[in-house]
Amino acid sequence: MTYGGYSNQIVVDQRFVLHISDSLDPAAAAPLLCAGITTYSPLRHWQVGPGDKVGIVGLGGLGHMAVKFTRAFGAHVVLFTTSANKTEDAKRLGAHEVVVSKDADAMGKHRASFDFILNTVAASHNLDAYTALLKRDGTLCLVGVPDHAHPSPAVGNLIFKRRSIAGSLIGGLKETQEMLDFCAQHQITADIEIIPIQQINEAYERMLKSDVKYRFVIDLASLKGDTDR
Amino acid sequence: MTYGGYSNQIVVDQRFVLHISDSLDPAAAAPLLCAGITTYSPLRHWQVGPGDKVGIVGLGGLGHMAVKFTRAFGAHVVLFTTSANKTEDAKRLGAHEVVVSKDADAMGKHRASFDFILNTVAASHNLDAYTALLKRDGTLCLVGVPDHAHPSPAVGNLIFKRRSIAGSLIGGLKETQEMLDFCAQHQITADIEIIPIQQINEAYERMLKSDVKYRFVIDLASLKGDTDR
Repeated sequence: MTYGGYSNQIVVDQRFVLHISDSLDPAAAAPLLCAGITTYSPLRHWQVGPGDKVGIVGLGGLGHMAVKFTRAFGAHVVLFTTSANKTEDAKRLGAHEVVVSKDADAMGKHRASFDFILNTVAASHNLDAYTALLKRDGTLCLVGVPDHAHPSPAVGNLIFKRRSIAGSLIGGLKETQEMLDFCAQHQITADIEIIPIQQINEAYERMLKSDVKYRFVIDLASLKGDTDR
Repeated sequence: MTYGGYSNQIVVDQRFVLHISDSLDPAAAAPLLCAGITTYSPLRHWQVGPGDKVGIVGLGGLGHMAVKFTRAFGAHVVLFTTSANKTEDAKRLGAHEVVVSKDADAMGKHRASFDFILNTVAASHNLDAYTALLKRDGTLCLVGVPDHAHPSPAVGNLIFKRRSIAGSLIGGLKETQEMLDFCAQHQITADIEIIPIQQINEAYERMLKSDVKYRFVIDLASLKGDTDR
């Protein structure tokens, strides 16, 4: 019988152990191991930095980390969202500009101006609205897999300006450690809400409604209380 | 009144003039200005060279130039075609291997092994068959715009192995001159069939049926004969 992630102790090869700085709140650091590295890795791979104009699509668990990292890397950060009411929070998290993606005029003003756009939205949507915003040689990188396929992207948008649509999947151990060290240096963690394990079903329902800013973290000490009941 | 491309003489700014080596047959060099640079440019941009495994999809006007260039750049060349009867010609033009893309077993053997695939097919088709053949960080580059959209590419194929789908459009004057010089150095031209202008309608019909190896070139001297009639 094994307890997996619910264990109190575990024996593991040192090559699979990561170091999290004492300077980071352990609860707020937990989502770095998924939402953190999933956004850090493509931003690093496509060498986002000072002088770049970078778009982040969606302000959820992944999107809010992407905004923090992109700002910390020194790029100009534009957050795309369908919800105008996320504007204030996006700016607090580090976005220089917020564009409501349903507003065609606002989108049109950014035409052919982005070096890189990281798209964290998993729901099926029209990618052409974003490829059209890329400069020559720009990349739209997807980190979400839609339940239903996105509408087929317009090939003309790729051929003109030699644009790319790419994907990226989490990151390796070496890069995850690099990310954790970067987070310690820049005091970056996720914005979280801590719940006891007893509220997991309610939290799951809220997550489905995007009612979380921006990740739930389960306090596993509460698991013991549950067993005791 | 202007004669455009049918002129005998033209005054043009020297910045828009290209030099074609006397060592190249002018008729066989003519398609280099379109099919040549359209395939040369992406192969150079994605730095195809020795040690790379490169796929070319389709053996038409663009595809046959792509095979010649990729071979000249020192890469391992695999030609994908729906027509098994193109195998011999593809090898004559420089392909090391030919894969009939309708053969799922043959395609499966090349899974996750390509650095770069240049897709010259403009007809709508399933791109997933090719993205699945790319290595980590590999790119599928499209140079044809389909009349009807391709089926929407699977995002999972991009996320796993961080693959990209890109596009490329012809090339600038500087790169076109570089391409022409490369062609002179390596004695590369298009495989052509010369027709008099009087056969243009028949040639157009044959082109629609892919019955040309691999570009028609019109002998404009025949235009004078036409005018005299």
